[in-house]
Amino acid sequence: MKNYQIKTGSKLILSRFDPDDTGKYKKTDQDKEKAQIVTTQLISKLSELQERLYANGNRALLIVLQGMDTSGKDGTIKNVMSSVNPQGCKVVTFKTPSAEELGHDFLWRVHQKAPAKGQIGIFNRSHYEDVLITRVHGLISDKVVKQRFNQIKEFEELLSESGTVILKFFLHISKDEQKERLEERIRNPEKRWKFNEGDLEERKLWENYMDAFETMMAATSTDQSPWHIVPANRKWYRNLIIAHYVVNALENMKLKTPPAPAGINFDTLKIE
Amino acid sequence: MKNYQIKTGSKLILSRFDPDDTGKYKKTDQDKEKAQIVTTQLISKLSELQERLYANGNRALLIVLQGMDTSGKDGTIKNVMSSVNPQGCKVVTFKTPSAEELGHDFLWRVHQKAPAKGQIGIFNRSHYEDVLITRVHGLISDKVVKQRFNQIKEFEELLSESGTVILKFFLHISKDEQKERLEERIRNPEKRWKFNEGDLEERKLWENYMDAFETMMAATSTDQSPWHIVPANRKWYRNLIIAHYVVNALENMKLKTPPAPAGINFDTLKIE
Repeated sequence: MKNYQIKTGSKLILSRFDPDDTGKYKKTDQDKEKAQIVTTQLISKLSELQERLYANGNRALLIVLQGMDTSGKDGTIKNVMSSVNPQGCKVVTFKTPSAEELGHDFLWRVHQKAPAKGQIGIFNRSHYEDVLITRVHGLISDKVVKQRFNQIKEFEELLSESGTVILKFFLHISKDEQKERLEERIRNPEKRWKFNEGDLEERKLWENYMDAFETMMAATSTDQSPWHIVPANRKWYRNLIIAHYVVNALENMKLKTPPAPAGINFDTLKIE
Repeated sequence: MKNYQIKTGSKLILSRFDPDDTGKYKKTDQDKEKAQIVTTQLISKLSELQERLYANGNRALLIVLQGMDTSGKDGTIKNVMSSVNPQGCKVVTFKTPSAEELGHDFLWRVHQKAPAKGQIGIFNRSHYEDVLITRVHGLISDKVVKQRFNQIKEFEELLSESGTVILKFFLHISKDEQKERLEERIRNPEKRWKFNEGDLEERKLWENYMDAFETMMAATSTDQSPWHIVPANRKWYRNLIIAHYVVNALENMKLKTPPAPAGINFDTLKIE
């Protein structure tokens, strides 16, 4: 499997990453099908591993999904995470902060939603919006941006030192692909409800967003909490890559069946 | 499908309900398989309907699961709800209240966890523990129990009037079946971690619990928020019955594709 993880401190040039990349798979129906079979296997592995994560209740996994509108954050959750036991999986969608949330530092509402031990937490958008949309619209100074990068790193270090494995995914689509996906929402009456006029305004700022993503990922990809640039023009490849990294992270936890409670002699125990 | 819903104000005699009931299905491998096929179809219908519930974002579904230890609350969530998009499904497991929670009325922590519009909320145990375990252990007076029944009914009425459909399931197993399930946890080293010595203490109070369940369901089953007594000795039949009622409730919402946002002329809209 090709590596999409950003190394700590590496110089990052986003334009060098191809959103249309499909790794060792060709862009044919046959290879797409091959990839989908592997994805299905990974998803079934994922749901087994998640049961064990839940049973042990001593580690957590946090998945952060970022990307432009239509890049497939919702689709990833639906396709990769839908076979997981919902008892051990919590999705948090971060929207425009409420008045109460704005009364606190930007990590306040995020910290509350960090996954508990035993859980997979999925952030659909996250604290990274606070160094993306705010930056692109000039709502915060460069000094504050830098400060926030540090605050984010320290926050994620706290989670990581407390047993949470963090995986951050940037769903990388091309500007043309976004055009097609937006046009599909316009064309297809069944999909029009998904259309949001605001998306067109953000689209005009595409280059500024790419710059902001580039700087942000270079500044906040660490060994404990790495960013992955996922080629996301092809949904089937995007699903495969994400399923791969999630399974890999859970396997690396080396979770076993939890131990039996101590102090009980199971051999002589009788149920009346 | 046989009806397991408790009618409002009906005299309820729990001992008349057979935990081993399998309705029109025989207790043969062949009929079990038949039931499982129907369940699979219902689950696939459920995940479609849930997408629509989420898309519309104007109704919610609250599923309350109660039952004795080992009655299959976790198993129901795993087996019936695991194909649902976790973005639209939140499971809340209510444990012993924290000191902060005890500082408030018993519905305070529950209200906070009520499902938002667009969501399926699943309560694994619930506010009903506050008229069950507390009652069986003599921690609250009969007067308080009656008061709480009213408070619960009014609370659920508030949710229901705000667009939440409520389904309450009592997973009904026999005392013998619990014995077998506890023994399996003792016998099988892979399952010992699930064993909790406290369960044996509660088991001694079986009859008291049955009385408490009986009174509680008779007092709090309403047309808007009905209790169902689910025969749960056979896991495959339990799954079928619950999947049936959940799908039925979602179908009754008559959810359509949400309307397109107003004020946009989709025919002339162009993406740059």
